[in-house]
Amino acid sequence: MADATTLPAVEAAMAETAAAVDAVLDRVLPSAAGPEARLFEAMRYSTLGGGKRLRPFLVAAGARLFDVPPARAARAGAAVELIHSYSLIHDDLPAMDDDDLRRGRPSCHVQFDEATAILAGDALQALAFEVLADPETHPDAAVRSALVRGLAAAAGGRGMAGGQMIDLAAEGTSPGIALVSRMHAMKTGAIIGFACEAGAILGKAAEPQRRALGEYAKELGLAFQIADDLLDAEGKSDDIGKTAGKDAAAGKATFVSVLGLPGARARANQHARGAVERLAEFDARADLLRAVARFVVDRRS
Amino acid sequence: MADATTLPAVEAAMAETAAAVDAVLDRVLPSAAGPEARLFEAMRYSTLGGGKRLRPFLVAAGARLFDVPPARAARAGAAVELIHSYSLIHDDLPAMDDDDLRRGRPSCHVQFDEATAILAGDALQALAFEVLADPETHPDAAVRSALVRGLAAAAGGRGMAGGQMIDLAAEGTSPGIALVSRMHAMKTGAIIGFACEAGAILGKAAEPQRRALGEYAKELGLAFQIADDLLDAEGKSDDIGKTAGKDAAAGKATFVSVLGLPGARARANQHARGAVERLAEFDARADLLRAVARFVVDRRS
Repeated sequence: MADATTLPAVEAAMAETAAAVDAVLDRVLPSAAGPEARLFEAMRYSTLGGGKRLRPFLVAAGARLFDVPPARAARAGAAVELIHSYSLIHDDLPAMDDDDLRRGRPSCHVQFDEATAILAGDALQALAFEVLADPETHPDAAVRSALVRGLAAAAGGRGMAGGQMIDLAAEGTSPGIALVSRMHAMKTGAIIGFACEAGAILGKAAEPQRRALGEYAKELGLAFQIADDLLDAEGKSDDIGKTAGKDAAAGKATFVSVLGLPGARARANQHARGAVERLAEFDARADLLRAVARFVVDRRS
Repeated sequence: MADATTLPAVEAAMAETAAAVDAVLDRVLPSAAGPEARLFEAMRYSTLGGGKRLRPFLVAAGARLFDVPPARAARAGAAVELIHSYSLIHDDLPAMDDDDLRRGRPSCHVQFDEATAILAGDALQALAFEVLADPETHPDAAVRSALVRGLAAAAGGRGMAGGQMIDLAAEGTSPGIALVSRMHAMKTGAIIGFACEAGAILGKAAEPQRRALGEYAKELGLAFQIADDLLDAEGKSDDIGKTAGKDAAAGKATFVSVLGLPGARARANQHARGAVERLAEFDARADLLRAVARFVVDRRS
């Protein structure tokens, strides 16, 4: 594309990545006719049901910096999306956030049942690591192993799962901005951080470059999460494809509840600018990553 | 030990492996003081709460055949145990088998709550792959990557998770021996199979040797599962540390419900003998694996 800094250019690039990642997902997701078919249907229902594929896009945009073949980035991006998809299924369960609506359709446990939804999430997580450890993702086993280790750490107790625990524990309390920030850094930031660094791992980039992408990801993740809180507070369910106003109703700790609407909006923009600043050392190939930092705060869904 | 073929010798070897694996688990399981502490406590509660550590023992016994350093086998065994532990937590959930008792103590969701139990299982699964992908498990990244791929395949939709789906789908129906066998081959057999092959992967064994261990594992897994069904049908809750007679009450498809008690007992012994036969090419270092095949059908808990 001629100018990667416009919103339509970012959206076109995202659509391109989404198509490539969806093709990988369709290929790696199991299908069968036996009594386990219900599980496979649930895995496909929740994973192939749309979504912006922001995380795979970050993998692809990061991989561009190091001239990684797009097919490898698509496989690593698919693995990240499998983890994201499993986390949404489990977060929606009645014992967790109890949400009936996801991406404009019934949640997995509503469409199927709770047991199937739990198992579908479990199997999607396993599949993510199976995809990463497959030589098709990268011929160098050291790269595959580093990808597995990074994604596992980001998804686990010190990352996404731990962040969700903090989120649940904070319900009905009045946590300060420090705890809300730490919760989001773990719950959504860790996986976004891995997505940004995955391109550097795939491209065997030097450590400072990987670190710069990690710093970019931290700012981006916060911008993204604050924008998400703003959408929940201001948005309509139809636009965002999930139940709006849910956070406030559940007494959830969000950036909006702590900072107020204008404060949260200002903070989101501040992190988006911070993200762009971290990319100073990269050339025009990083323009997509620069543009996506604005995209996440400007989006309407 | 002088004679590895007696039951006390097997039990001593199992205790030795269990101690080594528990030390690894204690080291890799996270702990913290923050609001995520509850998650880490639940992970520790369910993983360090006893158990025979049969699967890590199979990893260790297989690794002996190829002179793999025991510390590496203990790490791979710990990863398998983390997967086993997560599966027990999720299987016990109200939406799944709804079991309040596990290893003689309240199940994870009873001791903590459902949301914490779901998250603990999720985080344990991620940790299993993080442990395997860590260079401390094996210096060769190709070995680490093969371990991840094998365990992920065994745990996922075509393995353990798919088997649990079949188990749930078959409740209240009258499945034949073919479906019951396939269900167990996936639900428990796949992980036992990986445990037996992990030693060969760690020891970079030749393909025929790895295959022989895989065949041994298939027979062992069936012997183990039939013995488990027999314990559930005949045992007391105090002995087996979980609710006895539960399978029949739930209308579960088991080998006992399909074959009857004497038929199931005969079938278990047949598979135990079959397992020993698959080890013909191995020397005395395989005596522990031979003995464990008898152990799984003779055990009382």
